[in-house]
Formats: sequence, C-alpha cells, structure tokens
Amino acid sequence: MSTGDENHGSNPPPQAEAGGEAGYGDVKGGALFSIPGYGWADVAALEQSMAGRAVRVRGAAHAVRAVGRRVAFVVLRQGTSTVQCVVAAAAGGGDAGMVRLAAGLSRESVVDVAGVVSLPREPVHGTTQQQVEIQVKKLHCISRATPNLPISVGRRSAKRGRRRQSQSCKLFPAVNLLHHGQAGEQVVHVGQDKRLDYRVIDLRTPANQAIFRVQCEVENIFRQVLLSEGFVGIHTPKLIGGSSEGGAAVFKLDYNGQPGCLAQSPQLHKQMAVCGGFERVFEVGPVFRAEDSNTHRHLCEFVGLDMEMVIRDHYFEVCDVVDRLFVAMFDHLNKNCTKELETIDRQYPFKPLKYLPKTLRIEYDEGIGMLKEAGVHVEAMGDLNTEAEKKLGELVHAKYGTDLYMLCRYPSAVRPFYTMPCPDDPRYSNSFDVFVRGEEIISGAQRVHIPELLARQAEARGIAVGSIAAYIDSFRYGAPPHGGFGVGLERVVMLFCGLGNIRKASLFPRDPRRLQP
Amino acid sequence: MSTGDENHGSNPPPQAEAGGEAGYGDVKGGALFSIPGYGWADVAALEQSMAGRAVRVRGAAHAVRAVGRRVAFVVLRQGTSTVQCVVAAAAGGGDAGMVRLAAGLSRESVVDVAGVVSLPREPVHGTTQQQVEIQVKKLHCISRATPNLPISVGRRSAKRGRRRQSQSCKLFPAVNLLHHGQAGEQVVHVGQDKRLDYRVIDLRTPANQAIFRVQCEVENIFRQVLLSEGFVGIHTPKLIGGSSEGGAAVFKLDYNGQPGCLAQSPQLHKQMAVCGGFERVFEVGPVFRAEDSNTHRHLCEFVGLDMEMVIRDHYFEVCDVVDRLFVAMFDHLNKNCTKELETIDRQYPFKPLKYLPKTLRIEYDEGIGMLKEAGVHVEAMGDLNTEAEKKLGELVHAKYGTDLYMLCRYPSAVRPFYTMPCPDDPRYSNSFDVFVRGEEIISGAQRVHIPELLARQAEARGIAVGSIAAYIDSFRYGAPPHGGFGVGLERVVMLFCGLGNIRKASLFPRDPRRLQP
Repeated sequence: MSTGDENHGSNPPPQAEAGGEAGYGDVKGGALFSIPGYGWADVAALEQSMAGRAVRVRGAAHAVRAVGRRVAFVVLRQGTSTVQCVVAAAAGGGDAGMVRLAAGLSRESVVDVAGVVSLPREPVHGTTQQQVEIQVKKLHCISRATPNLPISVGRRSAKRGRRRQSQSCKLFPAVNLLHHGQAGEQVVHVGQDKRLDYRVIDLRTPANQAIFRVQCEVENIFRQVLLSEGFVGIHTPKLIGGSSEGGAAVFKLDYNGQPGCLAQSPQLHKQMAVCGGFERVFEVGPVFRAEDSNTHRHLCEFVGLDMEMVIRDHYFEVCDVVDRLFVAMFDHLNKNCTKELETIDRQYPFKPLKYLPKTLRIEYDEGIGMLKEAGVHVEAMGDLNTEAEKKLGELVHAKYGTDLYMLCRYPSAVRPFYTMPCPDDPRYSNSFDVFVRGEEIISGAQRVHIPELLARQAEARGIAVGSIAAYIDSFRYGAPPHGGFGVGLERVVMLFCGLGNIRKASLFPRDPRRLQP
Repeated sequence: MSTGDENHGSNPPPQAEAGGEAGYGDVKGGALFSIPGYGWADVAALEQSMAGRAVRVRGAAHAVRAVGRRVAFVVLRQGTSTVQCVVAAAAGGGDAGMVRLAAGLSRESVVDVAGVVSLPREPVHGTTQQQVEIQVKKLHCISRATPNLPISVGRRSAKRGRRRQSQSCKLFPAVNLLHHGQAGEQVVHVGQDKRLDYRVIDLRTPANQAIFRVQCEVENIFRQVLLSEGFVGIHTPKLIGGSSEGGAAVFKLDYNGQPGCLAQSPQLHKQMAVCGGFERVFEVGPVFRAEDSNTHRHLCEFVGLDMEMVIRDHYFEVCDVVDRLFVAMFDHLNKNCTKELETIDRQYPFKPLKYLPKTLRIEYDEGIGMLKEAGVHVEAMGDLNTEAEKKLGELVHAKYGTDLYMLCRYPSAVRPFYTMPCPDDPRYSNSFDVFVRGEEIISGAQRVHIPELLARQAEARGIAVGSIAAYIDSFRYGAPPHGGFGVGLERVVMLFCGLGNIRKASLFPRDPRRLQP
C-alpha cells in the first residue's frame, strides 16, 4: 500500500478498513484506511498500459447513472480529469448493495474506488479518460455532498436527459459560467455573484482550475526572472501608521490604541529597502484599496507584484527589466501552459496576446499625437481616460502589431509627487505605464531620492509636507537614485487570458460589496 | 558605457555629465549621466585581474580620511562589500577641489567614483576588497547624508582614532547591535528600538544584509519544494467578514459599511481551496494578530508559510512533506548561504542547527514521559508551556542529538475545534507541532472535513455553531480528507540563526507598540 511516499518517520498506527467485509459503504467519523493490494493512482495518470492493475482512486462523483439494479456508472473527477467507474453486481447478486450505494451517490460526493483498470470495448464518451475505465471492487463514500447543490459543476444547460450528461462531461462548464464583463461597464452579474457565493464549488470547474494554475505560473516567473537578475524578495508591512500616503481610499483601523491603516502599496517600504542597501528588491503581497469602484478591473484587495531597484544612468533600466520579465513570462505561459490556456479558452474564448520580442516603447506625446490624428479629443498634458487608453491600444495594435507596449515620459502633472521629473524638461517625468490589450497593467517610474525636491513637489501639489515628513526623512541618510513598478497579479492573468472581469482571476475576490466567502 | 544591460528598447535621451569640466562635484537635481570610457562595476566584483581598467562604482561613503590637503581615502560600500578609493591631487594641484570634496563627504552619502583599478603595495586593512583599490579620476556626490546620523553603520565602540575605523571596516557592526533577547522575557531594548526607528540605516549593516537574504532563500526553498511536489501557490483574502474564527485577537475594521477584520490565518480559505479541487496548495502571505504579546517571539504582523493538502491514508502524509521540506531547506541554507550565515554569526554568534536527515517524530505522551522522568511537573493531557517546551527540547537534544523534531498525537483538548481526533482514541488528535531549538515553529494537523463532527466539536468547546455556519457549510458539497500546517517565516529565520529576537528577522517589525516606520 503506497501513500505516495514511503518514508514515514515512524509507523502510523494501523487504521481499520471501513465498510468491513462488504467492501463498500459510507466511511464513518472521517476514518482513513489502507486497502492491501490497491495502490493509489491519480485519475490523470491512468493509461492503457495499466490494464489489469488494481488501483485506488479518490475523487468527486461527477456524474452517476444506474442501469437497472445490477450496474451503475460513476464518473469520478479528480482535478480536471475524469474516468468512468463501472459498478456491477456479481452474478450471485452479492454486490447489489454496492450498486445501490453507487446509484444513490449525490453529485460531488467524495468517493474512494478500489478496482481494476480495464479497457472499454469502445472509447468512453464524455470523460477525459476515454481509453480506460475502472471495474469497481470496493466503493466507499468519504463525504456525502448535499443532494441539492446551489450551483452545478457539471451541467451546461437546463435540458434534461442523457445528452445533457454526456455533454457536461466533455467540457463540464457550469451553469452561468459564460458571462463576460464589458470593459468600463458597471458589472453586476447575478450568475457570477452566485458562483462567487459558492466559490468552493465554482472553483472545481476546469476553467477555474486552469486560471489559478496560470496565476501561480505568473508569480513563479515573476520571481524567477527577478531572482536571476539579483533581486532579493522582501516582505513589507501591510499595517502602517497614520493614513497611507496615497490619499483617501484607505482602510483604517485601531492598532492597539494608535491610528493605523492598511498599505495601499508597498511604495515607501520598498524604497526604504533600496535605501537600506538592498539594491534590487521585489515583493509579492496583498494591496488594499478602499475605493468604491465597482468596475470589471478593480478589487478592494489584490496581489501586488512590486519591484524597486537602483538606477545607474537612466530610468529605462527599469523598463528593460519590465521588458525582459514580461516577455519571458508570456513566452513561458504560451509554451508551458498550453493545456490550461486551451481549457480557459473553451470556457472564455480569447485571442492569444500579440507581443513583440522587444517591447515597443513610445513617448506619451507620440501617443497623444496618434489619438489626435485619429480624431480623438485629448488634452496635450492631461491624463488619458480608460476610453482613450483603449483607443490608443487599438491604434498601436494596428500600427505596430502588438497588444503589449510601454508609454513613457508622462507629463509630471498626472503622476504622483514622488515621481522624478525629466532632467531636460520638468513638465515631463521619468515615468511609464505598460498596456496590455488597451488596458493599463503596470505603472512605474524613477522616484525622487532628493529630500528637498520631494518636499517641493509635494508642496506644489498641495500636500502638507509635515504629514509626509517620515517619508521624506528616509532619504536624508544617503539615498541612491532608484525606481520601480507595480502590477496586479489578477490583472496580468485577466488581460493575458482576456477574461473580461478581474473577479475571475481572484480566488476569493473582494470588491466594494463582497467580503464573503 | 554599460548600464548592466545593453538592450535599451529605444535610445534614452542623452543626459549631460554633471560636474562639468572639473569632473567632480555635487550632482544637482537628481540628474543621471554617463561617463564615456568608464564602465559600471560592482564593488564585490572587483579583482586583481582588473588592474588598469577604468571603472565606475557607486556606493555609500562608509569611511572618509584625509591626509593633509593632497590625499583623501574614501571607503566605498556597496551591499556588504567595501573598497578603498584614493583621491589624490595632481602635482599641479589642479584636483585639490576633488580632495576637498572627498574629505568633506558625510558618512553614508551616496557617491559615484570613476577611476582606475590599481593594486595597493600592501593589502588594504579594514575593507572587504584588500588586494585592489581605485585611483579616483572623477568624483560625484549623488546624495548627501545628514552629517549627524542618528545611528551609525560603521562604529563598533565609542573609542576614537584610527583603530576604530579599521576595526569598523572589518566587521562593520553598528553601535548597539549586540543585544540578544532572552527566551520568554519581556524584551525592551532601547538600543534595538532606536535601530528599528532608523531601520533604513540599520538595514545597511552586514548582519541585516545577510539575514534578509537568508529569509528570501527560506521562502524560495519553501516554494520550490512544494511546487516540485505538485502544490499550487494561491493567495487568499486578508480582509474577511465578521470577526475571524480564531477569537479575540483580531484587527477589526469597517469595510464599506460592513464589519470586517484581518485574517489571523489563511486556515479557512486554504481549506476551501482544497475542497475547491486544488488538491495541494500553499500560500506565502501576511498574517495579522492583534495580541498584546510583547515577547521575543511574537509579532502583530508576520509572514505565514502555509500549506494544505488532501490526505489519503494518514495524516503523517503531511508530516512527511514537513520533513522533506525543512530538511531540504536547512541543507540548502547550510550549503548555499555559508557567507551569509558566517556574517550573521559574527554579529550574533550562534550554534549551527543540529538536525537529522529524517526528522525525529515522537508522540506527545512520550514527550510528557520524558519531562516527568526529568522531574518536570506537567499535566498528562494538558498543554506544554514555553518552559516545558524548552526543557523537552534539551532532553530530545541530549537523547536523540537533534534540535529539530516533531511532537505528534496531541491531546484533542489543547487543539482547535477543527482538528481531527485520532480514530482509535478521540482524546488524542491527528495533529503535530514541530520544534526548533526547543521552540514551537510549526503547527499542523488533519482537519475535520465532516460538517456534523465539526459542529459537534465546536459545540463541545462552547463555540456558537451559528457564528461559524459559513465555515461548516464549506464542507457540505463534498470534502476530501485534508490537513496542513502553518509556519512563520520570521520564526524560521530567527530559530535557524539563533537570533533570539523575532524583530531581527522582520524587515519592518510590527509589535504591540511599533507601527513605524
């Protein structure tokens, strides 16, 4: 009996097989047990060469169908893989109880099957494993699901009958999973809301299994590329004193009698880490925004991917890292996550992202020029609204053939006070945004490391210098020129996969109305 | 002119060299500039083979010494590396201004040196680079540090004179850096507090540079080992509804008109992820505890390393992952972080951690027996206090020769209500703690995945079942047996390196009194 690893440090106390002689039944009290002769196998790993082998598989009862009293078919699902399990009463009728147990399984119940891998006469329809099935010898229900699930993992439509079942097994998209949020619109999907209410069920759909594996890879590549370039991973505090430097949209709390709040970004602390001698740092951690923005692209809590680094000659050194990082990331996803991307595409069809091996950089003024030429009204030194950004994305796509580009040298007036002005013209700044599919995804810049300039720029924007004295003081003990950027993990996944709504890229999303589950 | 990477996406606008003809001076307004002919080099990378090469180096003025008006020595520090830079006036006296600039540099000012690598006649004392120095041709001050630093990076003692400087350069421990907190005591170090107030300077000391590089490696290994074993990295929300399941020590806040709080652990959500079809998940993220515990081992915010996984036959499957993970982690640190560990040891001497290739597991009752035999008063089915844990650590060390061990099969009464009881005796539970140097570092267990049992156990502990209905309901839709553990990143670093105080292992620590910087 294998548990997947053989190196138990000491012998676990023996636990009796549940179900006793009969070899089937409900497991009581959560007892776990070995079944001699049946080794654990993953559904995804079953293959024809295993025919005749005794295996044990645990999964969810994805679909159940009884044929009379003597045979029942249970489609068992583990992760995104499914296999058909055949429960048949022996000629003597001795296993009729096991068939009854199988036929009565509620969908999504967790089931242990011990059986023999066999080759079906015809390929099984509707399961991911089509060339193998399992002839069940022992069957235990580990966890009974409530018979009336609030949402379904396995039904595509409300049509009844056998066609429904076979269809659901093929793709198993759930009811109401097909909504797309529209860019810029106020998104209120009843279907999506209900799914999010029962996220523990909703997450079992193939698209969700794929989305969060892609998300994990995005983070892995972010870390790997930066580690390979000499960055150190850090963790800065999320609880900070007073109210965050950023403004009003901050969650406030009482910290043992002191006023505290949740960090709206790791900005100050990652800058302090650089000034503290760590020349290149990155952080992956939650970012909190109390904004009441009910859009397809805002969350009240998201995962920030942040970096900050010393700059030697030019802030383009930061852009260079962005370029290498995101091209490596997207290359990796396209190469190593094909199965996941196809799975997502089946549920939420999207066009593969177009990007260049060397990310396009254009200056803000050029972008403004392109928009004006296309007849879009924009102010020369003003900020771009969501609509203008979208339009510029289209123009850039048409002209340069890329969905990914950087817009550099923003007007100083539309950037935060701590942004370094361009040395040749302080009306512009050493800053950039990165756009994917016409939506801003990354914001970065060189920071002001000179306390006097910082104070002057804060004052010019009407910020009380006294209120940010601690921030300014951080640069009084010797501060290297530095810059960095921040990007939301969920936004990367949403825009790369064209999901249309950021809630789809957050495991348990938090928006102005949602604090559950 | 190299910037460390040659692939600028477009040509950066040229920026003039500051200091003009003279080749020295204060850089105004944060301007960055290239110096043709001088390529950037890292202090750590300088070596004798580079003699005669023109290089540019940026670092902090770690020490400055003028010899008359014609020569000044500037020790430049970058990270944990230092090199001596020789600023000499030419025979004609033309560079006397540069010598004056050097001699007047305040410590910790950020300085750009362009010069020629040369071989000193005798090894330089007190710098990490002893076989090379730099003959300075151009010198620019990038950022002036305030002349009176609140704490010092470079002085060991209050003694004055040249001995001080040479000593400080060798190890550069800062004033007041040598305090060790004692286990269990109320730690109030004025020295440490002041250092934490000025963490941006304090972080520049070699021990701190090393500690946070070790911390980064701990996280890297945690992730790598789990990823290699099929775990998926997830992010669960830190903002949760109502008050956390754990009890009173919770930070509360107003969430757009709803009562909310900060998660005291990712417990519920990582369990939901497992029930949501992700069979093995891990998370690295902040954990918030509003406890008023002013000890050497508690923080109000720390970084949790958490995992949760399906269990097939026995909860020892979780222990097996712990075992492989932490042995791999400690092996890696000992093998690949020798320089960092030596640096930490010089400042905070510690004994290398003793651990076995296969982590020792003993049952709780055996631990109790060992303590009783040693004359320690402990209650058979009660919890161990810090003192008893410490003592047991000593006994285990003496008997088994390890500082790392697992204590399994805890009495159910001392574990949370969601802990699975042992199937053979419900007075005990499928749970474990891991100890390092006699201090608890990891807590893990199999969880109850059966809603009825969960409700019963909550009731038996006086918890209102209604208040945790959402948690219990998560297991009504089919839930696999599962378990996991949590460990604090800072605590791993503190105990592996014997730092004695957890604040030393937190970049910007948060304790009941400290919310700054």
